[in-house]
Amino acid sequence: MVRLPVHVQGEAGLPPEGLAREDVLAAEVPVALVFNGISHAVMMATPQDIEDFALGFALSEGILDAAGDCRGIEAEAVDAATAGLPEGMPGIEVRLEISTRAFERLKGRRRSLAGRTGCGVCGVESFAALDLTPAPLPAPDWLPRVNLPTVLRGFAQMPPRQHLNAEAGAIHAAAWAALDGTVTDVLEDVGRHNALDKLVGRLAREGRLGTPGFVLLSSRGSHELVRKCARVGIHAMATISAPTAMGVQMAKASGVKLWGLCRAPRGVLYTP
Amino acid sequence: MVRLPVHVQGEAGLPPEGLAREDVLAAEVPVALVFNGISHAVMMATPQDIEDFALGFALSEGILDAAGDCRGIEAEAVDAATAGLPEGMPGIEVRLEISTRAFERLKGRRRSLAGRTGCGVCGVESFAALDLTPAPLPAPDWLPRVNLPTVLRGFAQMPPRQHLNAEAGAIHAAAWAALDGTVTDVLEDVGRHNALDKLVGRLAREGRLGTPGFVLLSSRGSHELVRKCARVGIHAMATISAPTAMGVQMAKASGVKLWGLCRAPRGVLYTP
Repeated sequence: MVRLPVHVQGEAGLPPEGLAREDVLAAEVPVALVFNGISHAVMMATPQDIEDFALGFALSEGILDAAGDCRGIEAEAVDAATAGLPEGMPGIEVRLEISTRAFERLKGRRRSLAGRTGCGVCGVESFAALDLTPAPLPAPDWLPRVNLPTVLRGFAQMPPRQHLNAEAGAIHAAAWAALDGTVTDVLEDVGRHNALDKLVGRLAREGRLGTPGFVLLSSRGSHELVRKCARVGIHAMATISAPTAMGVQMAKASGVKLWGLCRAPRGVLYTP
Repeated sequence: MVRLPVHVQGEAGLPPEGLAREDVLAAEVPVALVFNGISHAVMMATPQDIEDFALGFALSEGILDAAGDCRGIEAEAVDAATAGLPEGMPGIEVRLEISTRAFERLKGRRRSLAGRTGCGVCGVESFAALDLTPAPLPAPDWLPRVNLPTVLRGFAQMPPRQHLNAEAGAIHAAAWAALDGTVTDVLEDVGRHNALDKLVGRLAREGRLGTPGFVLLSSRGSHELVRKCARVGIHAMATISAPTAMGVQMAKASGVKLWGLCRAPRGVLYTP
């Protein structure tokens, strides 16, 4: 969270020129993910639960197959001046030590990626690089127990646990709920993909990824979010807002049960 | 827009198993941007106003300095099977013919980008690649006329013109308002960056980029949105939701007047 001087106007009782005061805003800092010493990506993220974020990203993006492929995670603040960042904007570097097998695969992928994004590549090949055809998850026998009542029970438990959002507003949350709808984890970030990655990382670090339960998201259901769930074996996902058409297509293709527009007492199942 | 079978549950009068019906969802398709025959990027976008999107992206990302650098734009649907996309998911290819100068610069940038994202790059260099230090815009003499009453007048005119959002929900909008708050253009997209790029492109194609006025956005104020405005010489931007701390930092650094939390009769000026 960051405190900044702002100017509130238009409220009853305020002078026409408004009121100068301090406001609390969501922090968003550059986070560099470094695998075995090689920088892979810089993302903007809210600087809480950064180790969870890094591991979740690595899993949901298919860099790692399992949490066991990660031998260690270390996050460190990086000085703005040293990193070439603007004054007063520190970055975070997260160093992950990963298995040789995962690292060799990542290097191979990066080589082909560098080729694909270089000049002389036609549009058709670029479309194919989107990789929109996932292998479908098999449906576990407990999946029918994720239904509207359990989904709504889960959403009802989220707001009191969205601490950053209560303080600064405009912050997304991803939650994990047991089959009866009891919420066990709420992770927050300015970015909805990051919030989900933080949740995935949290579950993985505690050995709970792959156990029965489902994901609740404060955002809309876009295809990347569905895809991330499918990649790490999450079978059901519910969002407050509507999905996109491609989110539904991805859910059907990957076998993820998808709820949207979950506003009690109502909810829509998009993969009937 | 896409029509899909869904299952509505929990509404009064519905049977316990819910009601099967058709729902309208926001479409999102892969769009390949091809400059002088070279594919540069594939983005997911709502397939309306695609030529505006392509030109706006090229301007707000600094690929073109002015609309005049673009000699022609041509958008064409690409068959899913030919493009390696999943069945029933056609892509769009947008071909832009740009000036030799802009194209040479793009090729140079892409070469250095390929180097940067390749192996052997340290985290510090990757941070620097974020390029977070814009040159500040000079404040025009009309800027004080963008104030809370004109901003709120603008927002009040948006909902009846957000046609896609009314139909499918969860769709962002970017609008252009004259100095008195009269909204002249509303462009929509599932992605908030895309909505802004469509607006920038629309203004540029009609020779109105750089004229007095301001941008209204249905989303939160993140630094990339502020940055895009600064790059194309838009001096003021107002959002319904809160900005991030970095959005405010970027606004101060680039000289963009930034409003947030604009909910009548209230609004917050983050760059007092």
